[in-house]
Amino acid sequence: MILGGGFGGLWAAKALARAPVQITLLDRRNHHLFQPLLYQVATAALNPGDIAYPIRAILTKQKNARVLLGEARGIVPAERKVMLDDGELTYDYLIVATGATHSYFGKDAWAPVAPGLKSVEDALEIRRRVFLAYEAAEREHDDAAQRAWLTFVVVGAGATGVELAGALGEIGLHTLARDFRRIDPTQVKVLLVEGRDRVLNTYPPKLSDAAQRSLEKRKVEVRVNAMVTAVDPEGVELTYAEGRTERVATRTILWAAGVQGSPLARSLAVPLDRAGRVNVEPDLTVPGHPEIFVVGDLAAATSNGQPVPGVAQGAMQGGNHAAAMIKADLAGKPRAPFRYKDKGSMATIGRTSAVVVIGRAQHHGFLAWLFWWVIHIFYVIGFRNRLSVILSWAWQWLTFRRDVRLITGPVGQLPPVRDIGPEGTPLLPPAAETIRTAE
Amino acid sequence: MILGGGFGGLWAAKALARAPVQITLLDRRNHHLFQPLLYQVATAALNPGDIAYPIRAILTKQKNARVLLGEARGIVPAERKVMLDDGELTYDYLIVATGATHSYFGKDAWAPVAPGLKSVEDALEIRRRVFLAYEAAEREHDDAAQRAWLTFVVVGAGATGVELAGALGEIGLHTLARDFRRIDPTQVKVLLVEGRDRVLNTYPPKLSDAAQRSLEKRKVEVRVNAMVTAVDPEGVELTYAEGRTERVATRTILWAAGVQGSPLARSLAVPLDRAGRVNVEPDLTVPGHPEIFVVGDLAAATSNGQPVPGVAQGAMQGGNHAAAMIKADLAGKPRAPFRYKDKGSMATIGRTSAVVVIGRAQHHGFLAWLFWWVIHIFYVIGFRNRLSVILSWAWQWLTFRRDVRLITGPVGQLPPVRDIGPEGTPLLPPAAETIRTAE
Repeated sequence: MILGGGFGGLWAAKALARAPVQITLLDRRNHHLFQPLLYQVATAALNPGDIAYPIRAILTKQKNARVLLGEARGIVPAERKVMLDDGELTYDYLIVATGATHSYFGKDAWAPVAPGLKSVEDALEIRRRVFLAYEAAEREHDDAAQRAWLTFVVVGAGATGVELAGALGEIGLHTLARDFRRIDPTQVKVLLVEGRDRVLNTYPPKLSDAAQRSLEKRKVEVRVNAMVTAVDPEGVELTYAEGRTERVATRTILWAAGVQGSPLARSLAVPLDRAGRVNVEPDLTVPGHPEIFVVGDLAAATSNGQPVPGVAQGAMQGGNHAAAMIKADLAGKPRAPFRYKDKGSMATIGRTSAVVVIGRAQHHGFLAWLFWWVIHIFYVIGFRNRLSVILSWAWQWLTFRRDVRLITGPVGQLPPVRDIGPEGTPLLPPAAETIRTAE
Repeated sequence: MILGGGFGGLWAAKALARAPVQITLLDRRNHHLFQPLLYQVATAALNPGDIAYPIRAILTKQKNARVLLGEARGIVPAERKVMLDDGELTYDYLIVATGATHSYFGKDAWAPVAPGLKSVEDALEIRRRVFLAYEAAEREHDDAAQRAWLTFVVVGAGATGVELAGALGEIGLHTLARDFRRIDPTQVKVLLVEGRDRVLNTYPPKLSDAAQRSLEKRKVEVRVNAMVTAVDPEGVELTYAEGRTERVATRTILWAAGVQGSPLARSLAVPLDRAGRVNVEPDLTVPGHPEIFVVGDLAAATSNGQPVPGVAQGAMQGGNHAAAMIKADLAGKPRAPFRYKDKGSMATIGRTSAVVVIGRAQHHGFLAWLFWWVIHIFYVIGFRNRLSVILSWAWQWLTFRRDVRLITGPVGQLPPVRDIGPEGTPLLPPAAETIRTAE
């Protein structure tokens, strides 16, 4: 039985296609999500449907697999059972691939103010907030309040944070540049806050520098050695390593920091690391339970003494390894430790800009971006999605446009239009006397 | 000032592009919605972004227009004011184009159980319910309850109802046919309920017959002369013209019946028709207020003694007429009555099947469908959307697939998985003894 239809769980299921087993894949969503491109949904470049694919459709031809929609609430290893809200399932082997989310470092009350980016709903919520901020700014007449609507704070300068910040800058600089009448969207300010001393700290320093320069061209101000020490709907407080604090007025805070393992891990009753991830054995199993594998972001795994990074590649390879170990058991062969093969890592900052590391090779700039583009297209599941993503990107690249800008969900409280009453001043500059207004 | 960015309001704004006026277009959404294709979002064939386009982006180059996000709550004709939640706006001319919604004929309590299809949110809610119904059926072990999950009821056999019903049938027959392990989605049953004596009653009887035959090939059972007299989460009661009643067990009821004008009309303090639409003067103005035009679905307009139908063409032409009358006023020319030019009407039933009326010509079948396709592509706003829609449709047509099947929002209560416990029977047929199960 497999818990989770992300890269780890899905790759495990596919690797077991010809094994003499019956697979149940349980996921609380009906779709696999291509999470590396989720920030593009949040920033209106792609439709949710472009990067989400029904798990059933992926496994429809794999006759030894069934897919079940539901959420695992707990695991009882002693009884080989998975508890659901409304029932339980038994297993011979279990592959836990329920992933991780961002961590608010104990301040979970910040979550509603500073949403993270893990699900389609998260992405649509962020999209809603970003584009509503411009609408609110257009209505707002107080300069400081308007400035706060046009200020976006991204917390955490890993790949997701860098990609979000770069895209937010481009939305103001290009996408919306001419769409408003009172505000100038190119005056957007994006703050990228990072607790360590540079952006993309898992990359070589040279690439961090390149990424920062590239971000700064997109109106992103990078604040390193800075911790978020307070969050509220009107702004954020930063405390720098040297002790100084700074208050930034903003109406839009996005969270891309920290790692927090799925709460399901706690029911395994084994030691977890500080981030709530399972300290797995070399073969990715839970200590004392060779029939339970943990793969992907939920596993604190090592390979050749190095921690396996929480990226899609790590999950896919982990899923494949778990499947291989089950097949080895069935064939009466010995288990082997997991060996992570680093195929490189990459992050994109925006149009024509990315950083790429493959082995010792380091690249940044246009060619790196082209490479990023090809790799991501290659991995987007489903031919139709692939075509749609290529089309969207090509169109966006040629025109600077982002067309998936619809705001759905509640509009909430916008600044009042108090100044457009009969006694107020018109929003537009007064028309020349010869022009009869039809407003 | 223009209220509403649908076909009526947007066409009016565009027609005033070179007029010496200042235009404020107010809409509670930030996007124009190509409503004729909304049922395709509800049935997972298109992404919301494919048929929704930011109103700002459409009018970005029209310098005499500003776009404001907000909802009009009332109109005060005597003071030439529009009231918002949070302020008010004055006007010289007003074009009211806030449309209509479905009508529950006084039974508004049915709305949560039987949602209509007017907004992107509505479409996503319907998509969620339709695909969740199959997930629930897959879990359900009681035959009658499973049958209820696989039964879909569509109320109202106008164009929207017919299109929804046809697509629902095709989802079971083709899209999901092989995706489940326990249920057979091709056993889907769709009931299309119509109060009058035939489907598409505004079309010639010959085409109604053709549409009904086409629907029946798609597992749609048509029930005419039938009124819905009760609605609850477990089913629907139909009462036929001859007095007989029938109870249908279903978990999914979609509402596509009736017309109900936007409540804004009431604040005009003029007589409305039974459906809450404004009985406008021949030039589309409100009686006694030549400066207020009502166009589109909210207007009960006549042209040459015939009622103007509540379709996109009627709204576009109405918007153009209102703009022309304002320009006539500014040029000191007399007003003219609105003349609706019927460019024909069409509805699609599914793959390769549609009905089309143009003047005296009536068509159904493949060529009609091809014609429907070309016309709709032509009118979808935005070049990028057009390409994306063509691509999606071509892909879907070739493969029978619908790829935008993600379920977002709450999953809600599914049938319990009670039978898959240690003591229960497995969901899959028992494996052969030689197969070691990894479930």
